[in-house]
Amino acid sequence: MMSVATTRRSRLTPEREAELYEAVLQLLREVGYDALTMDAVAAATRSSKATLYRQWGSKAELVARALKHGKPGPEPAAVDTGSLRGDLMELIVRGFDDSRIEQDAALMRGVGRAAHDNPDLLRALREVLIEPGLADLRVLLDRAVERGEIRADNPALDFVPHMLIGALISGELIEEKPVTQAFLVGYFDAVVLPALRA
Amino acid sequence: MMSVATTRRSRLTPEREAELYEAVLQLLREVGYDALTMDAVAAATRSSKATLYRQWGSKAELVARALKHGKPGPEPAAVDTGSLRGDLMELIVRGFDDSRIEQDAALMRGVGRAAHDNPDLLRALREVLIEPGLADLRVLLDRAVERGEIRADNPALDFVPHMLIGALISGELIEEKPVTQAFLVGYFDAVVLPALRA
Repeated sequence: MMSVATTRRSRLTPEREAELYEAVLQLLREVGYDALTMDAVAAATRSSKATLYRQWGSKAELVARALKHGKPGPEPAAVDTGSLRGDLMELIVRGFDDSRIEQDAALMRGVGRAAHDNPDLLRALREVLIEPGLADLRVLLDRAVERGEIRADNPALDFVPHMLIGALISGELIEEKPVTQAFLVGYFDAVVLPALRA
Repeated sequence: MMSVATTRRSRLTPEREAELYEAVLQLLREVGYDALTMDAVAAATRSSKATLYRQWGSKAELVARALKHGKPGPEPAAVDTGSLRGDLMELIVRGFDDSRIEQDAALMRGVGRAAHDNPDLLRALREVLIEPGLADLRVLLDRAVERGEIRADNPALDFVPHMLIGALISGELIEEKPVTQAFLVGYFDAVVLPALRA
């Protein structure tokens, strides 16, 4: 995804782009989405607002791309352990770093709140993070179907997004605590894998 | 729940209480949570603000109780069809009225947004709606364990809340459409029941 976006829209080097994204994430942690301005991003990165808008079109898009950049892994298509459970566990380990779980959760909580009030941010998050993430995951699920681990007509395949979002959102809502790797492993073993293997 | 609350805290008749809740829901639809004031509720119901505060303690609590009142059914403990699937389907039919799904979804979307910004509302929703709802559901699941439909040590039992919240929240997030009875039946058959029966 990153390389496509870069050739299509950018003359910035990947290093420079990474630097900009880091600055956006830093500002997002400090002041939150609503108070984050393109002026502040331009000042913090010594770039022009015109460059930022040419490159990303809107604050919502810039923030969504910065969040995608800041999310370590997972690149599901590149994960291929030979079993569905192995692949999913690999994604959990790569994608959820327990040592920074509090700060990641605080960041995403703030973004979630902002997305409630800013339809353009919700749209950008959906296009940049949620939909590509689900498409990547689908590659991994399709391989499990080919291997015969999942029946091709298992209706649970259509509900994988709902199962995942349930795990990610409701941990906070019900237990008021961020999602850990151990919680996710338990959820996949108790819910996602049994439903997919049924 | 209702009768306990009434004897414990209220000298209002159930009819008068229902009338107040209806007025709150009406105001909530018209102006939203933030703009809803206890003054407006008092005026609309020809009661005093002192009465409202004595009875409900806070706007958050009043709104949470009004929402609980406005939710048709489900009283899980009273549902007993003899099978887990039968019980769950009965809850879906009683709890989700497709004919008012758009307006219910709009109301809950507004409340969800407000809960993001108002920790006291989130707390009241959790105490008045979410936790009692989950406790009621647990009665029904325990019966399924006693009948031998669910293994007592099935770890999926601990994740029922997450599965449900996933279905209720992510339908909107992913597909941008409110949750229908048909969607819920599909989700229960593909995800919840296979996980519980594993």
